[in-house]
Formats: sequence, C-alpha cells, structure tokens
Amino acid sequence: MSVPRVTLQEIAEAAQTSVATVSKVLNGRPGVSDAQRSRILRLLSEHGYERRGVHKRNPARLIDVVVRGIDTHWATEVLMGAEGEAARVGAGIVVTVTHGRTLGNRRWLSALAQRHSDGLLLVASRLSQGIDVELAKLRIPYVLVDPIGAPSPAQNVPVIGASNFAGGLTATEHLLNLGHRRIGVISGDRDLRCSQERLDGYRAALGRAGLVPDDSLIRFGDFLTDGGYAAGADLLGLPHPPTAIFAGSDLQAYGVYRAAKELGLGIPEDLSVVGFDDVPLCQYVSPPLTTVRQPIEEMAREATRILLGLAYRGAQPQRPKLELATSLIVRSSTAPPQPGR
Amino acid sequence: MSVPRVTLQEIAEAAQTSVATVSKVLNGRPGVSDAQRSRILRLLSEHGYERRGVHKRNPARLIDVVVRGIDTHWATEVLMGAEGEAARVGAGIVVTVTHGRTLGNRRWLSALAQRHSDGLLLVASRLSQGIDVELAKLRIPYVLVDPIGAPSPAQNVPVIGASNFAGGLTATEHLLNLGHRRIGVISGDRDLRCSQERLDGYRAALGRAGLVPDDSLIRFGDFLTDGGYAAGADLLGLPHPPTAIFAGSDLQAYGVYRAAKELGLGIPEDLSVVGFDDVPLCQYVSPPLTTVRQPIEEMAREATRILLGLAYRGAQPQRPKLELATSLIVRSSTAPPQPGR
Repeated sequence: MSVPRVTLQEIAEAAQTSVATVSKVLNGRPGVSDAQRSRILRLLSEHGYERRGVHKRNPARLIDVVVRGIDTHWATEVLMGAEGEAARVGAGIVVTVTHGRTLGNRRWLSALAQRHSDGLLLVASRLSQGIDVELAKLRIPYVLVDPIGAPSPAQNVPVIGASNFAGGLTATEHLLNLGHRRIGVISGDRDLRCSQERLDGYRAALGRAGLVPDDSLIRFGDFLTDGGYAAGADLLGLPHPPTAIFAGSDLQAYGVYRAAKELGLGIPEDLSVVGFDDVPLCQYVSPPLTTVRQPIEEMAREATRILLGLAYRGAQPQRPKLELATSLIVRSSTAPPQPGR
Repeated sequence: MSVPRVTLQEIAEAAQTSVATVSKVLNGRPGVSDAQRSRILRLLSEHGYERRGVHKRNPARLIDVVVRGIDTHWATEVLMGAEGEAARVGAGIVVTVTHGRTLGNRRWLSALAQRHSDGLLLVASRLSQGIDVELAKLRIPYVLVDPIGAPSPAQNVPVIGASNFAGGLTATEHLLNLGHRRIGVISGDRDLRCSQERLDGYRAALGRAGLVPDDSLIRFGDFLTDGGYAAGADLLGLPHPPTAIFAGSDLQAYGVYRAAKELGLGIPEDLSVVGFDDVPLCQYVSPPLTTVRQPIEEMAREATRILLGLAYRGAQPQRPKLELATSLIVRSSTAPPQPGR
C-alpha cells in the first residue's frame, strides 16, 4: 500500500498521552476517561489509522464465531447473520463449536493467535474466568451474543441479546388474557441468562395480574425436544396440572405436544402451549404453534457489525448493551381454558 | 521447532525423480505413475515431511468449507460433520456461502491465499471453468461434496456424494410396490448432478416395472417448500393427475402437502408422497413423511477426512470417488392408491 501509515506513537503525541493509553482505546479496554477516549478515537480516525495494519502481518480478514452447537435453527440464523455481514467487508468467518464446554483453553487461544483472528463473536458461550485478560493480551476484541450469566462480562464488552424479559412477559400475558390461571413454565438451561430473564418476565406478568407464582409449575430444561417432553409430562402429571404451558423454545414446546398427545390431551382445547424462537417448525407442527419470535439473525448481524467496527476501525459501539425486540406470533396452539379446569 | 526438516529436493533425490514430480504428488496432481506416486508418498511419510511446514509461514490450521446457503438442514449437517472432523486435528473451518453464485473470482482466491487456507471442501458449488488450475497454483487441495454437473471435476479430485440413483430407484420402487402407476416426480435444481441422478433412478424403476416414463409428470424445482408447492399444485391440477409424488427434498414434499391440502386431498389416502433427505421436519409433519435418508453428515465427515489427509499428510485417498448409501425410511405418507384412480 502506498499511503503512509501513522504510528501509535504519533497518535499518542498528538493526544498528549502515552502509547499504552492509545492501545487501551484501540482495544476497548477500560481505564481511560470518556473525553480522552473520544479525543484519541477522533485522532485515529482523522489520521486514517488502520488497526490491523500495525498488529498483523497477515492481511486476510478473519473473525471467529463461537457457538454451542450447529444443529439448531438458532445457530443457523446466527451463522447466516454473521456470514452475511462479514462477507460485506471481505472477512471470512471461522466457526467453532463448544458443545457446551467452557471456552478459553490454551489450545484454542493459541489457535486464535496463530490464525490472527481479528475478533470474536461469542454466542451463548460459557467463558473461563480469565478469558477477558487473555483476549486483551492477544488484542482480539469480542462481542457477546446472548451471554451466559457468569462471569459477568467486563463493562466495556458489547453485549447483544433479545428482550427475553419482554418476551416472557408477553407470552404469559397472552395466556392470562385468554383466562388461564395455572400456567406452567419450562425455561432453558439454568446457567443461561436468557432463561432467567424469561422466567422473570413470566413472574412479572403473574404479579401484575395479582397472582402469586407457584414454584411447583416451574421447570428447567435444555431447549431441546426430549427435555420439553420430560418436563411437560412431569407438569401434566401433577395432581392439579396447568391448563397452559409456556416453553423456553419451540423444540421444547414440541416435546410438550408429544407429552400431551400421550395423555390424550388435545391442543389447544385441553392445553394451551406457547413456544419461544419462531423456528420454521412452528408452521409445520399441528396445530401451528403460538410463539415468541426472537430476532436471532438481526442480533447476529448487529453484533457482527459492532465487532467489525472494533476490529477494523477501532470504532466503539454507540450502544454496547443492546436488546432487540421480541414479538408474539399468535397461531393455533392457544385458546381459553375449558370451563371448570 | 527443533526437528530438522527434509526438503523436497532430498525427497526427489531419494526417489530418483524431479522436485516437480514430488510437488505433483504432494498436491494430488496427475502425470505421475502409480508406482512412482506410492514410492514418493512412502518416502515423504518415512522422512516425516510436513507439507505445510514448507509452504506456509502461518502454523494455524485452517480449511475452507463452501456451501450454497446455511439455512437448510442439509448445510447444517455438512457443517457439523466438517467441524467435528477438523476439530479432531486442531483445524478451524472457515465457512463461505455462495448463495448460488459461481465460485472462483479473484477476490475469493486472493482471500484464500492470504489466510493460507490448507484445503477446500466444496459443497454443491458451481465452479468457474479454470478454478482447478488456480487452486493448483495456490497448492490448495480440494474435495467435492455432491458436485454440480459441469464442469466435470479433474480425474484426481476426490468426490463424495450420496447414492442418488439408488435413492431415486428405491423411492419409486416403493410406490410401484404399493400399486401406484402414475407417479409424479419433482426433482431439484436442474444443474445439480444429484437431481439428474435421482431422476435417472426414477426412470430406471419405471423401466424395470415395464412402464414408459410420462414426461408430463416430471418437474424441476429448487429443493425448497415454495417450489414444491408450485410444482405439486401443477401436477395435481393435471387432467389425469398422479396418485403419488416423489419429491426431491423433504421441504419440497412439505410444499406438496400444502398443495394437496388446498385441493382437499388427504395424504396418504388420496395422494402418496415420498421425500428425500430425512430432515427432522419429517417427524413433525402430519402425517409423518416417508423419505429417502441421505447420510449427509457422514458424507461431510468422509470428505473432510480425505481433505485433511491431502492437506496435512499428502495422503491420496484410497477411493477418490465415493457414494454413500441412501436408505428408504417408511412412515405414514405412503399407501396403496384408491381403487379406480
């Protein structure tokens, strides 16, 4: 390239600060005042500083996308969104699957460094305690999509999720409005923040309606069909079973369908069911499933845009914590409860 | 690293041949006798030659997986298989989506070179005419999964597919055995070799049963639901409609379900339907779909194993052309035709 490059030293001198401080800003680390940060960002931008030109000999653009598994509609939408945005700037995406393992071992970090990854999109991943420090050392920025609850991400790490609380609230209110009073809930994995938030929404809706949540109607699961089947069978086997079940995913809801069918219960006449996600399955099952739509692909696109900004332009996101709206899609699996139940 | 490396020159001398010939063997190119090839491979192996150690400064292992789209069960299974095998040897996978575009433009080739890709898994991809030459220049080996018909891959390029002919044959024979005589067929994209092969299987089954294929009962589509719906509505609207339809994919078959439902036709009593793939959808739809199972993930695993062998051990596959068996899964969407139809 023929354009002369500005160095970090020159930026530091212009900003009357140290190279270490400029580096902090470039890598989105804390310990810099807002005024200082924006002065440095302006200088970087004015001088056309290209972050990767300095730290990376390899000119190939690569970002890493880490998912729990590939074989869900959820993961598919995430990959579609990430690939689409990355392709716009000529970046390839490297896909890593954790299969639920904690992320951050030496081998993985070393592979990231060796392939000169420009950034990480960490999707619903379980992170090891010190991973933020390790990634800072490698100067690899990262963005969280639908983060696991603990450890809490550092304050300056961008986090994108769906409005799970609002989703849980809306789904439960829909069932309350139909007249249901005993509403079972099957949430997702206990360690996922989204599971807890949906449950919070469920509890809030009951509270607003003047009802006291009955903990015997709450189950956790793994977002998959078999888990939904087991929890559904369990709830429907209670002496005083629920007349409606709000499931943590559409696959779980389909498991509840199976449990209801085995007990000879019709949907929606004997049992109302609401799912979460709005995967294509919802339209294929009989009856079509009422569900809370998650804007998964949009979440992934937004997260990728933020990551690409951090990786290639040193651009801090305007809103590092972002919740995209969920919406209730009413189909045929919900109806008023039968009189007397 | 402390292990002294053997050079191509040394291998060539030991094999009493030229460096160019050794290079041909390393990169799986033709023009070397079988005896010569196996002698060179043995020498490479004995001397612990590491292919990438010579050509690549970047020690990170990366293979590229190119798919048409991500949002199909088909692609998901491919990615699962490829990621699983690559992870075993510490290789990352870079996922590129073609969205049906022809593969091989300068920008993509340059990105491959820049990121030092070790190999390519090309899945149902449309390849530009000279791509084999370009990839040979870059010394990047590749393996085809379910290749597009044209251009035909060079003789030494490994090709992994499902036995589409046998699948088409078995599906059609199942319908014939039930007593169907007017059997419609909706194949996939015309340019995919697998579409043509399934159609060949369909024709062969009719021929074996002494029937002459009626071309008015043959349609092409895009493997998706809407295409299946359109083609299904078209076939069922014929003056003398088929009593059974063999669809090119399960999604297409579900489109046929929709078309039949709109015409008030029951499945299987008025119309038998067979799909292809065996995606989870088959169990969710009502009635559950009879289909031909494709071993997609196994195809991807096998193809990846071959690719990793080529990339990291210079190992030629024992069977460069491989068809994995399909199998008929009989569920509830097929039955004998009604008398008089």
